[in-house]
Amino acid sequence: MPTVSVNLGENSYEVHVKGNLLPGTGKLMRQTGITGKIALISNETVFALYGQTVIDSLETENFQVTPFIIPPGEHTKSLSQVEAICDDMAKAGFDRKSTIIALGGGVIGDLSGFIASIYYRGIPFVQIPTTVLSQVDSSVGGKTGVNLPTGKNLVGAFHHPRLVIADTETLSSLPANVFIEGMAEIIKHAAIRDADMLPLLENAAPAIARGDIASIHSLLPELIARNVAIKARVVEADEKETLGLRALLNFGHTIGHGIEAAVPYGEILHGEAVALGMRAALFLSVKYAGLPESDAARLLSLIHTMGLPLCLPSEIKEETILEKLFRDKKFESGQIRFVLIDSLGHAFVSQSITKEDLKEAIACLNTPWE
Amino acid sequence: MPTVSVNLGENSYEVHVKGNLLPGTGKLMRQTGITGKIALISNETVFALYGQTVIDSLETENFQVTPFIIPPGEHTKSLSQVEAICDDMAKAGFDRKSTIIALGGGVIGDLSGFIASIYYRGIPFVQIPTTVLSQVDSSVGGKTGVNLPTGKNLVGAFHHPRLVIADTETLSSLPANVFIEGMAEIIKHAAIRDADMLPLLENAAPAIARGDIASIHSLLPELIARNVAIKARVVEADEKETLGLRALLNFGHTIGHGIEAAVPYGEILHGEAVALGMRAALFLSVKYAGLPESDAARLLSLIHTMGLPLCLPSEIKEETILEKLFRDKKFESGQIRFVLIDSLGHAFVSQSITKEDLKEAIACLNTPWE
Repeated sequence: MPTVSVNLGENSYEVHVKGNLLPGTGKLMRQTGITGKIALISNETVFALYGQTVIDSLETENFQVTPFIIPPGEHTKSLSQVEAICDDMAKAGFDRKSTIIALGGGVIGDLSGFIASIYYRGIPFVQIPTTVLSQVDSSVGGKTGVNLPTGKNLVGAFHHPRLVIADTETLSSLPANVFIEGMAEIIKHAAIRDADMLPLLENAAPAIARGDIASIHSLLPELIARNVAIKARVVEADEKETLGLRALLNFGHTIGHGIEAAVPYGEILHGEAVALGMRAALFLSVKYAGLPESDAARLLSLIHTMGLPLCLPSEIKEETILEKLFRDKKFESGQIRFVLIDSLGHAFVSQSITKEDLKEAIACLNTPWE
Repeated sequence: MPTVSVNLGENSYEVHVKGNLLPGTGKLMRQTGITGKIALISNETVFALYGQTVIDSLETENFQVTPFIIPPGEHTKSLSQVEAICDDMAKAGFDRKSTIIALGGGVIGDLSGFIASIYYRGIPFVQIPTTVLSQVDSSVGGKTGVNLPTGKNLVGAFHHPRLVIADTETLSSLPANVFIEGMAEIIKHAAIRDADMLPLLENAAPAIARGDIASIHSLLPELIARNVAIKARVVEADEKETLGLRALLNFGHTIGHGIEAAVPYGEILHGEAVALGMRAALFLSVKYAGLPESDAARLLSLIHTMGLPLCLPSEIKEETILEKLFRDKKFESGQIRFVLIDSLGHAFVSQSITKEDLKEAIACLNTPWE
């Protein structure tokens, strides 16, 4: 079974990746040495599909488990939701020896991880990611947090899970566009670290784009594990994003975040915004980092074939993106740090990209692709 | 000048203790290597007294400073207040290179420290405590947090300040009862760690009780620094309260927290509740830990002479205290960990105190003292 270790000293943990892992949740938690009461945080949609399987598995191992179920949606990633769940947990007698399980996608993982980081000044938590995006990206690396009215992920904490259980079977139930948006992070990994993954992705893209997940089903454990490993190696090298290495994972994300911020939450999926952000970053990579045009074209073609957007929807205005962008947390003290690639699989942080460059790159998202 | 170092590896910091330090705030911050924009968090009362002095000092050192002023009171220690301040900071362009200053007592320190721990996943902060309680206790040790509707300090983080500036001159402006409540933590330090401090406290107590702070004014820097050092040594030995040493600081606090929780916030001061909690803990220390009756009587006499309560106000019912108590976070998974002293200056954690014992100890708070 593909298991990826994330080696961070006393914060180390294992990411189990395989189909049909959920019925073994309780056993994996016991093997990890987890004890105490369990708060299972999930949303209504995911809980209806997988909640009972997880609860049965926990009860078989004699865990005492209480579910805390919230509506689906990005709006739940808020401090008022944090307060509501923490207060319910306190009323239910959860204490510093308890453990939280996050069952769901990135919203549930970020929210639950943040709650785990502050409840009684920090308790253990387990991630059970159920989307492509959360399996290959947000469940690994310890970044947790919620949104402020002013912007996404502006408050949070570094708090690593004790265990991640990525059951690839859960990906079969995803709506096609949610499966596809997760592929944006996988393409990003190929672009910055693992060009050898490109042929595999190019083969799978047409089936994924038409929502035929069944035909690539057998590839998933290997593909997810490979991407978890990429993320894990970067996180190990720069746990708290202080050395500039972890920043490489932001390829396509700086402008992507600006695009997400330019419309109400949920109108564009994170992965779709990242796809657009990658197109803009590839434009600048060709212009300033010597990336061959043909390599940029290859990535753009993959993004397109995968069913991800390369052109801005008409309701998103360039000016709004720019306005949001210059409030983004990557613009530390006014200095722009922007990730470029100079070849397939190799990224670096540039400090010479100007606001004019960003404007030009975003303008190119209004031009048709090929 | 009495300066106490808190040695915690990369989290080390200095606590400066002296009169008239505020005009040197900017210089001390530069010496500590602090750069970036400053968010000054304070309450209306404290800001009116000292805000301009601090701002002038920062501006002299070319810091750019923005004040964030909230009403006084424990009710501001909430997640909704956290969200409001964080959102205002985001709108004002504060980023991960910014620093927060907490100017005020324990509420401001706990709230601002918690904000610093989660804003952009953690930014530096400086404590400028302006009460006895916050100078000798809450500003040192890195515990930050806010309240939930269900209970106090149930969410928070360990986040150490980069610098603490304890200007003893600010203590002159405190209302007498607020000065006096701080003495409860100082008496606690004498009880658990520093019996040699007792004669000094016994001499000063009558003046403090009648609100004559002027006559003991010259003692304050030495007294505060001595107590900061006691707290610092305990925190160094057990930074995250995992080894049981830091728990010794909870002497008088277990039952004290139950008493605080039994009435609406603010009806009894923290130090007053701790005084009552110490009486209960001394009762159990005599009964189970061999503490000589005469030693308990000496501490009770000091608490009384200092103007602190030894008997429960009539509106606080024993049953309410017990009900709140058994939800206290010290009762990990049902096991009671209770701090006793077996001699003046020596404390330990007992695991053999029962709920019946607690009931009896609380009942003694309804009997007259002497």
